[in-house]
Order: sequence, then C-alpha cells, then structure tokens
Amino acid sequence: MSNLITLLTDYGMRDSFVASMKGVIWKTAPQAQIVDITHDIGPQDIWEAAFTLRATYGNFPKGTIHLAVVDPGVGSGRRPIIVVTESYYFVGPDNGLFSLVYRDAERLRVHHVTSSHYFIQNPGPTFHGRDIFAPVAGWLTKGIPSGHFGEEITDFVKLNVPVPKRTDSVIDGHIVHVDRFGNLISNITYKDLQACFPEGSPLGPFTITLGGKEIKGLKKFYAEAAQGEAAAIINSNGHLEIFLFRQNARTGLTSKRGDAVRVVASPA
Amino acid sequence: MSNLITLLTDYGMRDSFVASMKGVIWKTAPQAQIVDITHDIGPQDIWEAAFTLRATYGNFPKGTIHLAVVDPGVGSGRRPIIVVTESYYFVGPDNGLFSLVYRDAERLRVHHVTSSHYFIQNPGPTFHGRDIFAPVAGWLTKGIPSGHFGEEITDFVKLNVPVPKRTDSVIDGHIVHVDRFGNLISNITYKDLQACFPEGSPLGPFTITLGGKEIKGLKKFYAEAAQGEAAAIINSNGHLEIFLFRQNARTGLTSKRGDAVRVVASPA
Amino acid sequence: MSNLITLLTDYGMRDSFVASMKGVIWKTAPQAQIVDITHDIGPQDIWEAAFTLRATYGNFPKGTIHLAVVDPGVGSGRRPIIVVTESYYFVGPDNGLFSLVYRDAERLRVHHVTSSHYFIQNPGPTFHGRDIFAPVAGWLTKGIPSGHFGEEITDFVKLNVPVPKRTDSVIDGHIVHVDRFGNLISNITYKDLQACFPEGSPLGPFTITLGGKEIKGLKKFYAEAAQGEAAAIINSNGHLEIFLFRQNARTGLTSKRGDAVRVVASPA
Repeated sequence: MSNLITLLTDYGMRDSFVASMKGVIWKTAPQAQIVDITHDIGPQDIWEAAFTLRATYGNFPKGTIHLAVVDPGVGSGRRPIIVVTESYYFVGPDNGLFSLVYRDAERLRVHHVTSSHYFIQNPGPTFHGRDIFAPVAGWLTKGIPSGHFGEEITDFVKLNVPVPKRTDSVIDGHIVHVDRFGNLISNITYKDLQACFPEGSPLGPFTITLGGKEIKGLKKFYAEAAQGEAAAIINSNGHLEIFLFRQNARTGLTSKRGDAVRVVASPA
Repeated sequence: MSNLITLLTDYGMRDSFVASMKGVIWKTAPQAQIVDITHDIGPQDIWEAAFTLRATYGNFPKGTIHLAVVDPGVGSGRRPIIVVTESYYFVGPDNGLFSLVYRDAERLRVHHVTSSHYFIQNPGPTFHGRDIFAPVAGWLTKGIPSGHFGEEITDFVKLNVPVPKRTDSVIDGHIVHVDRFGNLISNITYKDLQACFPEGSPLGPFTITLGGKEIKGLKKFYAEAAQGEAAAIINSNGHLEIFLFRQNARTGLTSKRGDAVRVVASPA
Repeated sequence: MSNLITLLTDYGMRDSFVASMKGVIWKTAPQAQIVDITHDIGPQDIWEAAFTLRATYGNFPKGTIHLAVVDPGVGSGRRPIIVVTESYYFVGPDNGLFSLVYRDAERLRVHHVTSSHYFIQNPGPTFHGRDIFAPVAGWLTKGIPSGHFGEEITDFVKLNVPVPKRTDSVIDGHIVHVDRFGNLISNITYKDLQACFPEGSPLGPFTITLGGKEIKGLKKFYAEAAQGEAAAIINSNGHLEIFLFRQNARTGLTSKRGDAVRVVASPA
C-alpha cells in the first residue's frame, strides 16, 4: 500500500471538480500524495480513458492507487468498484474503464463498493468522484483492506476491446488513439508484427496501409524520417504508430481514431 | 494553520506565471504543499473566479490557505488582502474575488496587506501573484498571524452578486456558470425551489424555462434523461443545473452565462 | 541538492507522457517533489521552451533540478545532458533548449549523460523523457554527483538567440513571446532602454513602433492604460511588453512572435 494516488478523469481543469476531489482526499488522508494523469479525456469517452490509463499505470510504483472517473452513468445503477491486481489498486465506476487492466492482470480481484460509511456524508447522485471515489481512495492509503468496502464480484463490465486480426502475413487493425502531436497509434503491436515472420528471426519487409497511404517498414526513431514523410515506428508502449516527422499526421493524413490500418508482410 | 495552499488564477498553464509563484512559495516555505484549483479562469473574469472558488474551497481541510489571483488592477491602488474565516485563509487582490466567501462566512476578518518585508525584494508593479501573494501565503503556512501583515479593514470590495428573485411561485434567476461538459448552472438553489412549496412538504410540480425551452421537474441523476433530452438536476453544489444527457447543453441549447432562467411552480 | 524537480515539456496533458515520467521519477526517488512548469510548449518549439524556462527557473530554491524535454531529435545522435550552474541542475536533450541558461550562468558545467545503468532498463528510442531524463533527475535528487552520469563536454548546442541591436538612440528588437493574455513580450530589456540615455539619468522620452502602431513611453502598470489602448510596460522579467489593457494585443494588433519592434529615443 502506498500513499500515491493518481487521478484520471474527463472533468477538465477549468471547473471545481478536480480540486474538490483532491480536497476530499486530503480531508480523509492528509498524508496522501496526489498526481494527475490527465483530466482532458474527451467528455464521457470511456475508451480513451481506458487506453490512457493503460499507457500510464505501469510506470508507477507498486501499491499506487489509480483513481479514474469517466462516468456518464453516475447516480444510476452502475456500481462503484475497487480493482486489486498484483501491483496496483484501481478505484472508479464499473463501466468498462478498467477493461485493459483486466487483460493485463495476472491476478485480479474486483470489489463492489457498498460500505457507505467510507463515503462523504450525504453523497449526492451527480458527483461520485468527490463523494465516493475520492474518500475511498483516501481510506485505501490508510490501509483499509479492499474487502472492507464491499463484496467481491465477478460480473464486472468489460468493453469490447478492438483486437487486430491476423491471417498469415496480413494484420488488420485500427487507429485506437491520436496523441497531442497528431501521431496515430494503432492497436497492432510489435508482437503482432513478429508473428508474421519465422520465430526468432528479425522482422522481414512489410507494407502498412492507412487511408490510401502506403508506408514501407519501420523507422527506429522519429528523426530518421524526412520532414513531413509519412513513416511508422514501434512506440514507447510497443504499439505500431504512424507519424509525419515534425508535422501532425492526424491533419496531414486526415486520419482519426477508428480508421483501419493494414499490415501486409512479405516473409522471405 | 495548515501547510496546504490552493491556487486559482487566470494565468493559464502555458506561461511561466504559475510555476514562478510556486517557486517563490517554496523559497519562503519549503514545507508548503501546493495544489492547483484552476488557472483557466477567463482572462480578468473576476466573477468566474469567485464562482469557481466558492464551488471548491469548502472541500479542503480546515486551515487551508486559498490563494486566488485574477487581478486586472495589479499595480494600481487596489489593495492586497488576507481574508480570515472560521475555517480558511484567503489571499489575493481586493477586487471582489472573495465576494461569495463573504456571503458564506459566519465570522470574517479582512486585513489590508501592507508589511512589505514579507514580499519578495523589489516587487514590480505587474506580477503581484509572484511578488506579494505567493510569499504572503508562504509566510502564513509558517504561522505568521494575519494581523502582522497589515491593518484590519471593513470597506473591502464586494461584487454585485446576481441573486434570484422569487414572487410566490415564480423564481427568476440566471445562468451563472457553464462547465466543461456544457452544463448550464443557474443561481437558483434547491432552497429557492423548496420556498415555492409548503414548508416541510416535498417539491411539487414545476416548469423551468430557458431560452424558448421548457423543462418539467427534475431528474435525480444525468443518466435518468434520454440521450440529448433537455433536463434539469440539483447539482453537487445544490444549484439547479440544465443539461443534455451525453451532449453539450451550451451548444445544443445555444445558451450562455447571463441567460435568464425562470421557474414556475404549481403548488397543489 | 534538493528534492525538487520541475518539468517543462511539449507533451501536453491529454496523453500518458507526463504522468509516465512522474511515475518513473518516483520509482527511482520516492522522496522527490515534482512540479509542472508547463507541458503546453508548442510541439517541437525549442525556442518557446528555452524562453519559458528562462522566465521561470530563477524563482525556484537553490538546488532545484529543472527537467526540460522538447526533443524532435529523440533517438538520433543528439546527446542527453546535465547542465550544472552555480544554483541549479538542468536535465534534457542537447538541442539548444538550455541556451538562455548558458547566457545567464556565471559558472557552468555540462555533462554528456552516457551511464546507461541510471536509465530504465531497455530504454526505447522514442521516449527519452520517461526512459532517460526522468530516472536521471530522480538519481540526482538522491545525491549522485553529476560527473557519474558521463564526461564533461564543451561543444554543447546553442540556439542563435535573437538579440536586439542598438545604434545610439535606436533599438531594433523582436517580439519573442506572446503570453496567454495576448501580451507581446519583446527581447528589448530595461537595460537596453537605459543605454539610450545618459548614464545615471532616468529614462527620457521615446517612441515604440510595432506594425504601424506608435506607442509613447511606458506605463507603470496595466491599469494605467485606458481600456483597449495600446501601451507598453517593463514586465516582471525586465522585458519591454506591449499590451492592450483588458484586451488581447495579439489579436487586437494582429501581431505575432518574430514581429519587429523599434524603439526611437529622444535624448534631451
């Protein structure tokens, strides 16, 4: 158990929402250390939250509590949950936000949070980030075992995560994220590419198609491409990423999340 | 007295302003714990700052120092002040920014900050956030009594706060804030609605009018509305809020801050 | 040596980049205290980063470690460096980002960071912010001497910093930064203005020209100008700044970074 709590929401930083959560955490647990992942998830974009959380959480020390709230169903029947993996705690709504955590985890326990004496008094039905999730995260840093917050459940909600499909030397995937630089991140991983070639051998030649654009093979780093050249790398999370060096690939290639990406490998 | 300092400004996060304030606080008080409320208040929008501060400050532990700077009059005659209430300290310019704090407080003391040996050396006339308010907040965390910073004053500046007007079963209010989701927050509170109905009874039927749009009664939570339906709730701060579920009410209803909201109640 | 690490990047706050760096710092150095300068530097805008860092770093306590990453050449031959001055440490890529630090420093030592056992295991070629700079900053807070990270170098990269040119009573400078309020900050300083007049005497009359606009002399503070009047001040960092009181000078004067600013002084 650590004192470290990360926050990931779609609340933005213009309003009172995020700071109100932090205030409540410190009322519960003055020793807690709080850090923002982001609050700029697109409003109610559960997938974006799941993707961004997945790209971040493993970089934190063991025991960190990751509090994530993108919560269009707040106040309805959707359940507040605590997810416990071999390395981390996750607190948030049971709406699929933790789907990629479930895929990564070797061990997994999910608790439906029902012990309302850990909530702030008179929680309202519109801001569980402040009224339920913040104090629960605070109590976790104080060593309250996750089992005290409610019963274990097994029917937690999972998003239908888009998985690339491989047929021999062809992989069909999608753009699943566009970052601040306009780089286009696909759900195709280095492992998927490796599977197109004989085991143990290095990657052979392949062609990536996105929109009408064809890209041959990989660069090792961004600056290996010419300025404005459409190129691809394996990014820092092991994903195939399409970029325009020193330009914005989203606007330059008029591409967006959801677009199809195809890899055709040419094994020797 | 606590070590916790919150910051609320219109400085944005693109420039050096906010970090410079934090550096100066830590030069004065290395043990201080600093947290951002927001720095995205519209440039020189004192009302927005007052509203956002009011929605946030009470969620923080007793003794927290709230430093707020939206300060078009910096360098002119406007006074730097410390406001002391039963639970918190507030530091900033005397331009009405703390008007809603004055309305909430049961006990209130306001000091005109004049003891310049608490400022950084050679403060300039354009950045009191860094040169005056930051070090003063730092010194407060070190236990300097508020009286040491200057004389008590009673003629501090108050904004003309828009208050809803009720005539029997009709309430005339305004939209006073639009949040990041496009939700439209009015200055009409749950208490205002209760006052339209017999004391001690639950709310009876009523109609809300905003622009040409009519909304009947309240939802308990957002997801109770159909997607895109114009609906209303009592939000997490007790205010009547108009929303479009999973859409943006500001753009969807072409509404903005200042727009009139009328409630017509139909007592049995 | 301090526990304080500042971060300045062009990573934005929408993605996983910044929080991933913080997580890695805390894995290395759990006691480190991390603060954001900004992450909204324009993508790959090394000058903007250099300028913003320069406006900020001196406000921090002695010993602070300033980690700055705007890094289009990541993964290529460009070197990771540690800069040691009489008061601070700087960590980042050797691409000119620290050019203004080099100009300010009285004493200066630059190390090429090559000791890869201080990096995270298996650093990739695309995200040195997380893989190299974050852990190096963490190790610095733990007291590892800068010399342990690699050899001293003297051929570090310097940007061609735009310097104003003065001929007797005429100064030709440029707008070098536009802040969030739309204020136009030039590279002309108070010292440059003083040099147009006899030593030891106060500033005499002068005219500032920007676009077709003429401005006479200086205001002491913003509110001294009439609303919407084009006016100039010496700002909180000693630079000549052109503003429109309570309006945006960038849009109001259709000016931008790089525009020429001329001062013509009229000595008695």
